[in-house]
Amino acid sequence: MKNTNLQDYSHKRYNILTGEWVLVSPHRAKRPWQGQNEEISTEKRPSYDDKCYLCATNTRINGKINPDYKDVFIFTNDFAALQKDSPKFNVNDGLLKAQSENGICKVICFSPDHSKSLADMEVADIKKVVHAWQKEYVSIGEIEGINYVQIFENKGAVMGCSNPHPHGQIWSQTSLPNEVDKKNQQQLTYYKEKKSSLLGDYLQQEQTAKERIIFENDDFLVLTPFWAIWPFEVMIAPKKAQKNITEITENEALNFAEAISVITKAYDKLFNTSFPYSSGIHQSPTDGKENKHWHWHMSFYPPLLRSATVKKFMVGYEMFGSPQRDITAEIAATRLRELI
Amino acid sequence: MKNTNLQDYSHKRYNILTGEWVLVSPHRAKRPWQGQNEEISTEKRPSYDDKCYLCATNTRINGKINPDYKDVFIFTNDFAALQKDSPKFNVNDGLLKAQSENGICKVICFSPDHSKSLADMEVADIKKVVHAWQKEYVSIGEIEGINYVQIFENKGAVMGCSNPHPHGQIWSQTSLPNEVDKKNQQQLTYYKEKKSSLLGDYLQQEQTAKERIIFENDDFLVLTPFWAIWPFEVMIAPKKAQKNITEITENEALNFAEAISVITKAYDKLFNTSFPYSSGIHQSPTDGKENKHWHWHMSFYPPLLRSATVKKFMVGYEMFGSPQRDITAEIAATRLRELI
Ligand SMILES: O=P(O)(O)O[C@H]1O[C@H](CO)[C@@H](O)[C@H](O)[C@H]1O
Ligand SMILES: O=P(O)(O)O[C@H]1O[C@H](CO)[C@@H](O)[C@H](O)[C@H]1O
Repeated sequence: MKNTNLQDYSHKRYNILTGEWVLVSPHRAKRPWQGQNEEISTEKRPSYDDKCYLCATNTRINGKINPDYKDVFIFTNDFAALQKDSPKFNVNDGLLKAQSENGICKVICFSPDHSKSLADMEVADIKKVVHAWQKEYVSIGEIEGINYVQIFENKGAVMGCSNPHPHGQIWSQTSLPNEVDKKNQQQLTYYKEKKSSLLGDYLQQEQTAKERIIFENDDFLVLTPFWAIWPFEVMIAPKKAQKNITEITENEALNFAEAISVITKAYDKLFNTSFPYSSGIHQSPTDGKENKHWHWHMSFYPPLLRSATVKKFMVGYEMFGSPQRDITAEIAATRLRELI
Repeated sequence: MKNTNLQDYSHKRYNILTGEWVLVSPHRAKRPWQGQNEEISTEKRPSYDDKCYLCATNTRINGKINPDYKDVFIFTNDFAALQKDSPKFNVNDGLLKAQSENGICKVICFSPDHSKSLADMEVADIKKVVHAWQKEYVSIGEIEGINYVQIFENKGAVMGCSNPHPHGQIWSQTSLPNEVDKKNQQQLTYYKEKKSSLLGDYLQQEQTAKERIIFENDDFLVLTPFWAIWPFEVMIAPKKAQKNITEITENEALNFAEAISVITKAYDKLFNTSFPYSSGIHQSPTDGKENKHWHWHMSFYPPLLRSATVKKFMVGYEMFGSPQRDITAEIAATRLRELI
């Protein structure tokens, strides 16, 4: 039975994966907009741009020349936030606590075609990206001292993306970042108690409830999680409990690629714009432990709220209090579902 | 002894108040900028704008008329995210967990002068804002069912502020928001063990170290915390352990106002622009408990990174992993200190 209070009155919802809350103010969706509008570039891009440092055969800032790649191309970030061989140290000086952090940062070009985004790519080509993610997760994760591999994409200038060429990043490091650590704890606690996947059990409940599901195929659900923060936040998760993306079969990789294609296309239709977002895959650490409690998933955090130029600001209250949203997860799911 | 590794190599720093980490990549400060530039309005504003819904004597969207106020003016938010009398309910449906949240949201105009910001106001006038914050904290906090009062300001269009008239907000509610809850836990744990203020002990250590202190007067320190996330993040904290702003004396209120004035003026000088930020005061809950472990403080989270138009994006890695910064807290403190 649906709880209509959730569509009418302020409430907070619990994120089972992080243990944190989001404030939802459904009655507030009507407030007028007087704030900043983003500039959105509608310029049609060429398939090749001789000034793009990610296009095939072009020279990067450090003088290296990109190969004449035909599908996916991966290289180590020229301005990596983490370095493999920086010295190890520890600061434990009263209340000042710091630790060196080593890692590897890579850039992954999804396609040589400068004009495309995942939304414009063929499912078969997205599948090649999935395979590249798998390979990188394994090969980086195997390196001594790398205990976590974060795959993500910043899409659109409004998401700090400095180059429109279709690409993502992979940052890997020694320790678990904050968000991963929270999800690690919450899943572990549940798994110990129930011998079952926290996210898996949640997904089953969502399959019965239906109201937050946007799309599904044999292996994947695409949904707005009950506790979504961003107006049109979406999660893609495998129905079967799998701890990381290396566990998916050839056919599951195709269905994962289809899920990515379906949601990114729906996003582009929503406000008739190349929809900006940050996406990322949370999966088991590469720390050599069993990590049976992990259930991997990919999330999309898009900033747009009500048009191609009006975004949701996570500012004052959100920074000092909790994330806050107006439009509910259920309404967002309905709108996205209608675009498929 | 200063640890030079912290200025040269990637590391993570621990936030004693939240229990979370920030990734610092000092070597990365040199990377070129190819991303989005913000549009910054340099337009000089008039002291009165007949289209501004916060200016004295103007009519707001709901038809109410603002009084002809002379200093501070406070009213209940016309589009409040929290409402006092919405129904109470609880959702506990398998893995779906939600709770109604009641509260009051107010807007506080700092000055009738539309052209000003805190940085342009006299210290004596900022002191009137401090007194208004005190009064609101008490009167809202006394209301049955209000256990926390969050005072904050979003300044600048880039921070989602929809009106340049100098103003802040006060959102109050039944439960502790995420960030407050973390700080509550961390301070409580420390206080139980040491019978001393966590932040107070940290401030003493900073007074000896000196490298992160930007300004001080008899009662307040202005510093970049060791674990700062935003490039030019700053904290103002009372040297004496006080749990909330009602504990400050008349003279301390003046010194607090001076600290606000000094840092906001330095900010405006930094990139020669009306510096955008979100600021907020974290202080003891109004839940009727003793809360001796609380040490109140005001923080400024400004988005700008290297000029009036280039901001730091908290996106992909930051959303899925941990906050990340390039320029260190020590460098930021030095730059701000030089502007005072
Ligand atoms: O209330 P305002 O100023 O319209 O709105 C602004 O501040 C709020 C509280 O931080 C945010 O939730 C909004 O996203 C932001 O645009
Ligand atoms: O690495 P890029 O694309 O230059 O930079 C972008 O992504 C990084 C990782 O999310 C962020 O730290 C930067 O703020 C953002 O501008």
